[in-house]
Amino acid sequence: MNDTTSASLNDPAYELDRAYVFHSWSAQAALTPLVIAGGQGSRVWDYDGRSYLDFSSQLVNVNIGHQHPAVTQAIIDQAGTLATVAPSAANLMRGEAAKRIVDRAPARFNKVFFTNGGADAIENAIRLARLHTGRDKVLSSYRSYHGNTGAAIVATGDWRRIPNEFARGHVHFFGPYLYRSEFWATTPEQESERALRHLERVIQSEGPTTIAAVLLESIPGTAGVLVPPPGYLAGVRALCDRYGILLILDEVMAGFGRTGRWFAFEGYDVTPDLIAFAKGVNSGYVPTGGVIISESIANDFETTVFPGGLTYSGHPLAMASIVAALDAMENEGIVANAARIGRDRLAPGLAALQEKHQIIGEVRGEGVFWALELVADQGTRAPLSGVVMGRIKTELLARNLLPFLADNRIHVVPPCVVTDDEVAEALAIYDEVLGLDLLA
Amino acid sequence: MNDTTSASLNDPAYELDRAYVFHSWSAQAALTPLVIAGGQGSRVWDYDGRSYLDFSSQLVNVNIGHQHPAVTQAIIDQAGTLATVAPSAANLMRGEAAKRIVDRAPARFNKVFFTNGGADAIENAIRLARLHTGRDKVLSSYRSYHGNTGAAIVATGDWRRIPNEFARGHVHFFGPYLYRSEFWATTPEQESERALRHLERVIQSEGPTTIAAVLLESIPGTAGVLVPPPGYLAGVRALCDRYGILLILDEVMAGFGRTGRWFAFEGYDVTPDLIAFAKGVNSGYVPTGGVIISESIANDFETTVFPGGLTYSGHPLAMASIVAALDAMENEGIVANAARIGRDRLAPGLAALQEKHQIIGEVRGEGVFWALELVADQGTRAPLSGVVMGRIKTELLARNLLPFLADNRIHVVPPCVVTDDEVAEALAIYDEVLGLDLLA
Repeated sequence: MNDTTSASLNDPAYELDRAYVFHSWSAQAALTPLVIAGGQGSRVWDYDGRSYLDFSSQLVNVNIGHQHPAVTQAIIDQAGTLATVAPSAANLMRGEAAKRIVDRAPARFNKVFFTNGGADAIENAIRLARLHTGRDKVLSSYRSYHGNTGAAIVATGDWRRIPNEFARGHVHFFGPYLYRSEFWATTPEQESERALRHLERVIQSEGPTTIAAVLLESIPGTAGVLVPPPGYLAGVRALCDRYGILLILDEVMAGFGRTGRWFAFEGYDVTPDLIAFAKGVNSGYVPTGGVIISESIANDFETTVFPGGLTYSGHPLAMASIVAALDAMENEGIVANAARIGRDRLAPGLAALQEKHQIIGEVRGEGVFWALELVADQGTRAPLSGVVMGRIKTELLARNLLPFLADNRIHVVPPCVVTDDEVAEALAIYDEVLGLDLLA
Repeated sequence: MNDTTSASLNDPAYELDRAYVFHSWSAQAALTPLVIAGGQGSRVWDYDGRSYLDFSSQLVNVNIGHQHPAVTQAIIDQAGTLATVAPSAANLMRGEAAKRIVDRAPARFNKVFFTNGGADAIENAIRLARLHTGRDKVLSSYRSYHGNTGAAIVATGDWRRIPNEFARGHVHFFGPYLYRSEFWATTPEQESERALRHLERVIQSEGPTTIAAVLLESIPGTAGVLVPPPGYLAGVRALCDRYGILLILDEVMAGFGRTGRWFAFEGYDVTPDLIAFAKGVNSGYVPTGGVIISESIANDFETTVFPGGLTYSGHPLAMASIVAALDAMENEGIVANAARIGRDRLAPGLAALQEKHQIIGEVRGEGVFWALELVADQGTRAPLSGVVMGRIKTELLARNLLPFLADNRIHVVPPCVVTDDEVAEALAIYDEVLGLDLLA
């Protein structure tokens, strides 16, 4: 990827990576990974001191920004005390972390089962739902990503499911997405109503008594920051209640501050039965994730064995980083900052870009969770090609902005600690690049 | 569990755990978790300063011992530099870790794909095998544990598979286990030969061209440290070659020093196509794992996209801890110590216990990886009951030994750094407890 790469060619970090590291979701030969050596707040840098404004939050996980001193210090302190302990033991940091998570969740939730990341959070949420209901099927959306392990990847709706379809009982449906409606809808209200009608028809056609859970990202993330239309999530909850089905909300990407709220679903008049989380809970400083379990489900396993587990469940370093991250986010108003930045800076700033650049078909989002949907033609809404998206990535990187690109979209997903000045700087870079003659 | 628990009742670590933490593989109401606050080498302690000799290595992962200063320092340094980075980036520690792992593996291996732990290492090994062969089925042993996620748990053969069977293409067979032979064998050679004949009949009956891989723990661990009989693993390799099937060896528990070798399979004249690892690679100080990939399989994905990935793949804290742990294990002769302890201390010491105590039906193992199989009757080999095993656990804990118990077995699995004195101390405790009138 242009001068970034050539600068890295004699870098041992780059050379070792190319020789020995097998990368995810990629053909290996084509890779020219950006070397990242350090970071602070909304910026990262390589070994040569070249720095980038990180508007990707890496994989949309560094909600608290890079190298928050309270979180790194908590890791340092715990590493000096006890780096690892078995899940069967009790450890103070694990209890403190679980309490802080439960305290932020709605009243019906009382326990946390910790995992290593988002995928195994989904795995265990599905396991709990199947065991609680005694039913097999899990319904999830085609436009979704729920992780890479055996059940999580088949719950996933997007293309990444196709080469991995080895688990049974997973059924997919279409969610609301007005800009490319599956329901011939023309208003948000109509899209919501029709998407709910479609889901109910799938439930009826699959057989309600065979369905354990509906699994949804509160706001589908990698699929394009698909903010649900009015009434949709509340309507899904009503359908679940009508048919005795559990609602699992995947808050792995949307949770813990990204939307300007602790949980994305709090903005949509809905309470799930199980919440899967990872990423933002500790900004990924140590691999972790988990399921927040409502009391009625947790109670099933008071005297019955829960058949799931993993060696690093409730890992002390991860737990210490959760405690520090959640305390710092609260004490420093970081979630409120994400809300303010979304409302006062990104919403108007991105709307102004849309007015100026025909290439932007739609702008969607809230907090620090936005997508610019780029189109080759405003009338047909034909997605911008991968070749042009590659040029956009190159030009953004050349201007020292680290972007998050997915399909024909730029996801504008900085850390929750991003400042007004950094937003202004990024908006100017997006503006300049989108104004280039990229189609030439 | 006796005075341990009552001492913990006013401990905030204990109280918070019971209030908020959902534990793996357990009925929640019956739990009385031991509080662990810190550790060093082969010992851990609670907040009251009571210490335990850790002959569990937690979940058989703390190979380098608790709080090895080089490893904790590496985590501290990396936490101060860059705690997290996306998998798509290049980072020096990731390349250094991958190089060290590849350097220890046989020549055919050239790349590492990093995961968060052992289960997703198995998930990705299975994914690679299916994509490489274009075949679906994976054969694994009934006496096995391969992890808790969707495909890993169905590859698992033990009871933990049963409530989780939602993935297709997994077929189970019987492995060698002379003490409880499935093949009416009376010698190790006969057990090996008959187990291979059984596996070949399963392969033929399932259809060789439908089988992607045979997946085996080099030494089945949780199933009972089932050291393979002469020729078995080499025979499995020959069967795989005959039928064009890949061999995946699960070295999650057996690898990185536990047997007194870097890889357990090195003792059995066999080279696999894919190696899954976790635990010992960094002693679990930071959650991590991965797959070591042979060149012919890695090459498939030079120009074809590998459809797997996860946010914390190659996490910098984990990578820094791998580099430090492998260097320290090499420089300090820690793997050699495990070999020596096994040969000179545990082998004769446990044999002496067996001679003395009728309750010990069989002793198996090598390095710091042993099992005492406890029986109610030497003639019938009837396993000792769960009630009596519970008493044994209580009595061992009361003597400040933290044991690893599974079914009717005590697994003797201290850190690889365990000293002669600590082994003598533990042997004396086992001796005393096994001499109690436990059946009363």
